[in-house]
Amino acid sequence: MSELINRQYYLAARPKAFPTPEEVPFRDVVVAEPGPEEVVIRNLYISLDPAIRGWMSDTPNYIEPIAINDPVRSSVIGRVVKSASDSFAEGDIVMTVGGWERYTTAPAAALNKIADMPGIALTNYLSVLGPTGLTAYFGILKVGLPKPGDTVLVSAAAGAVGSVVGQIAKMQGCRVVGMAGSEEKCRWLTEDLGFDEAINYKTCGDYQQAIQQACPEGVDIYFDNVGGEILDAALLCLNKFARVAVCGWISSYNDSDAPGPKNLWQLVAESVTIQGFVVLDYLDSFEEAIGQLAEWVMTDKIKFKEDIVDGLDNVLPAFMKLFNGTNDGKLVVRLEP
Amino acid sequence: MSELINRQYYLAARPKAFPTPEEVPFRDVVVAEPGPEEVVIRNLYISLDPAIRGWMSDTPNYIEPIAINDPVRSSVIGRVVKSASDSFAEGDIVMTVGGWERYTTAPAAALNKIADMPGIALTNYLSVLGPTGLTAYFGILKVGLPKPGDTVLVSAAAGAVGSVVGQIAKMQGCRVVGMAGSEEKCRWLTEDLGFDEAINYKTCGDYQQAIQQACPEGVDIYFDNVGGEILDAALLCLNKFARVAVCGWISSYNDSDAPGPKNLWQLVAESVTIQGFVVLDYLDSFEEAIGQLAEWVMTDKIKFKEDIVDGLDNVLPAFMKLFNGTNDGKLVVRLEP
Repeated sequence: MSELINRQYYLAARPKAFPTPEEVPFRDVVVAEPGPEEVVIRNLYISLDPAIRGWMSDTPNYIEPIAINDPVRSSVIGRVVKSASDSFAEGDIVMTVGGWERYTTAPAAALNKIADMPGIALTNYLSVLGPTGLTAYFGILKVGLPKPGDTVLVSAAAGAVGSVVGQIAKMQGCRVVGMAGSEEKCRWLTEDLGFDEAINYKTCGDYQQAIQQACPEGVDIYFDNVGGEILDAALLCLNKFARVAVCGWISSYNDSDAPGPKNLWQLVAESVTIQGFVVLDYLDSFEEAIGQLAEWVMTDKIKFKEDIVDGLDNVLPAFMKLFNGTNDGKLVVRLEP
Repeated sequence: MSELINRQYYLAARPKAFPTPEEVPFRDVVVAEPGPEEVVIRNLYISLDPAIRGWMSDTPNYIEPIAINDPVRSSVIGRVVKSASDSFAEGDIVMTVGGWERYTTAPAAALNKIADMPGIALTNYLSVLGPTGLTAYFGILKVGLPKPGDTVLVSAAAGAVGSVVGQIAKMQGCRVVGMAGSEEKCRWLTEDLGFDEAINYKTCGDYQQAIQQACPEGVDIYFDNVGGEILDAALLCLNKFARVAVCGWISSYNDSDAPGPKNLWQLVAESVTIQGFVVLDYLDSFEEAIGQLAEWVMTDKIKFKEDIVDGLDNVLPAFMKLFNGTNDGKLVVRLEP
């Protein structure tokens, strides 16, 4: 059989802030033949998510940190090129946890075949039907517990998670206010996605005032994607028994000395619940959730954007877009144009 | 009728740190005759609680801040001396929200008659059967949601709330670890109250290490009375799906610039729920809870301490004991020795 060369980005050192090419360099290695029940896939798409930055640190996390010298971990979609398992044949399209690399070798048990559905693109399995869409689904429905008439505030609302959170909350009869970082994003929220109001956090001035103006009856659910100062301001706008759903704090991933929220005493003042969660907590309900999300996508009830960057060599600069807010939708690297 | 003179401590200015006699001075005023459906009571006992410090600030809270020039608000037990209501007669013993004052005038609807129960002292209604006991009861049972085998960590464990939390958790089949500020308090927890272990936070060195040693299987429920550095350390010791019950953060009441917890990202790492609550959230279940607590007290299943300070003139120095940890049990001021 022909020898396959795998270019892979690996963790040479734990980044202190934004990962640099020195901390995350690449190497070319020969792909070993798959062992029993192993499968080699050639990656077509790599998902870039803020959580990956968390795995690069060695602080405790919901899954193990990436070990030094290991490839950077990522969800991938690929085509099977070598299989030592009866369950997968060459040419099958599968999704798995792989790396920032051209080829991933994984046990057959860790692969999921991807069904070809009308109106659903392959990349959708990394976005609206993947971790970000599922995070939105479980976060708003199982953690936020929306009731008709509730006011729902969403930070990073034009992001892959936030935009789906808001659209699901609208379907639950909530008033939905999103925060985003440009006029264009804000227009997308209100004009295309049906958000009731949008706050441009870069130009709104005082966060607390802006939230209070957009949420005159207070906030019942805050879906928090960012932490930091916006969380502190939102805490001051919460109604009695409000719920705060937290799936990650992008503002502190690159700053391990970031101070915690100062206004956390609001928890007691308004009997607030702050609940952290990760999508894996709801593994048992994935199938049901993907089915529901796919139906919403096919019937145009959920709109979404994907930001597809070409070329494995661009993976690190593409990853940075998540942290400077320049990505326009769920960020995916396409390896074969 | 004879004229009654009311000495009352009032809020002259909002304290920046520990309240001073300049910020909380007293005045002597004539008690007005009760209006229709009003009752005047001569206070026998005044309850001193950390929450009162919160009400002295003008930040949003679960009840209105104390207005400037108003008496400092407090739970009181008193004897009716004048009644303009058919529901109360002179000599009745009642509990209500009053002030740091000799006489309280209150609407009859805000008074609760206190039943004379064998084995229950009047002061018990301000401690184990009052706000602190009820806070413990609802906090551990309704917020903590203990399961047999859970490890429960309690800060300020020798306090009026924490000591009852731990004893109820033991009855639920949990392993209970308390943190307290002296060897004597720690001995009381383990030898008299049945805590499995106690940590002296003043001598234990690194909090995180001490908690990990005392809780080798991690913490499932953290009942947090103090916030600050102990919360930050406890966050690093939580198990997956842990619950943190918060009824007030004594470490930050006197320091409005206290930084928030740095390790709050643990919420996402371990899918933790932090829930703030106040005892009033459970008003509908007070009767049931008091009945259960009284039964536990009478059958010696719950032990407790009361720290009774004599004299209204000592109310402010007595209040300080809550913040320097020198009170020994639920703090109550007795007006008539």
